[in-house]
Amino acid sequence: MHVKQNPDGLTVLQALADPVRLEIVRQLAGCPADDGELRCGAIEVPVTKSTASHHFKALIAAGIVADRSEGTRKYMHLRRAELDERFPGLIDSVLRATSGR
Amino acid sequence: MHVKQNPDGLTVLQALADPVRLEIVRQLAGCPADDGELRCGAIEVPVTKSTASHHFKALIAAGIVADRSEGTRKYMHLRRAELDERFPGLIDSVLRATSGR
Repeated sequence: MHVKQNPDGLTVLQALADPVRLEIVRQLAGCPADDGELRCGAIEVPVTKSTASHHFKALIAAGIVADRSEGTRKYMHLRRAELDERFPGLIDSVLRATSGR
Repeated sequence: MHVKQNPDGLTVLQALADPVRLEIVRQLAGCPADDGELRCGAIEVPVTKSTASHHFKALIAAGIVADRSEGTRKYMHLRRAELDERFPGLIDSVLRATSGR
């Protein structure tokens, strides 16, 4: 699993300030808490696979998302607990502020 | 006074995702509530005047900051009440997440 251990607040903010990445985070945030994972292919964003892949990587690099491989499949989850601990209220307020656009 | 009436969440987020603009917002947020204004020249940021001016304009365009002229002087304030109403918790959580860098 690839995880950046200590995401920096500005890095997280800059990674979130993009409509496609926000949509990925929103879909991951909507996963049931006990599981919380989505296959990369199950995330629906209106961009090409290679563009989506670039955004996934940016979210992982910022420590917002972690990924896990199982055979040829890739699964991702939002690092919700870590983010909420380091940046209280940030993910919730950002998702709320940018919903219903 | 120049104010964008209905800031959009993504626009606000993108405007905040910059270290100089965050510093301006942080200094404005630290002004006493009854007054809440700072002269543009009183805001200390480690960039040239023209770069600072560009950032002030971006913050005004995003509806985060409002400005007011008095003679040749320009005053700015954070549109705290409007932002807190439209985007609950956003400014606080962003400032908290990016403090102490």
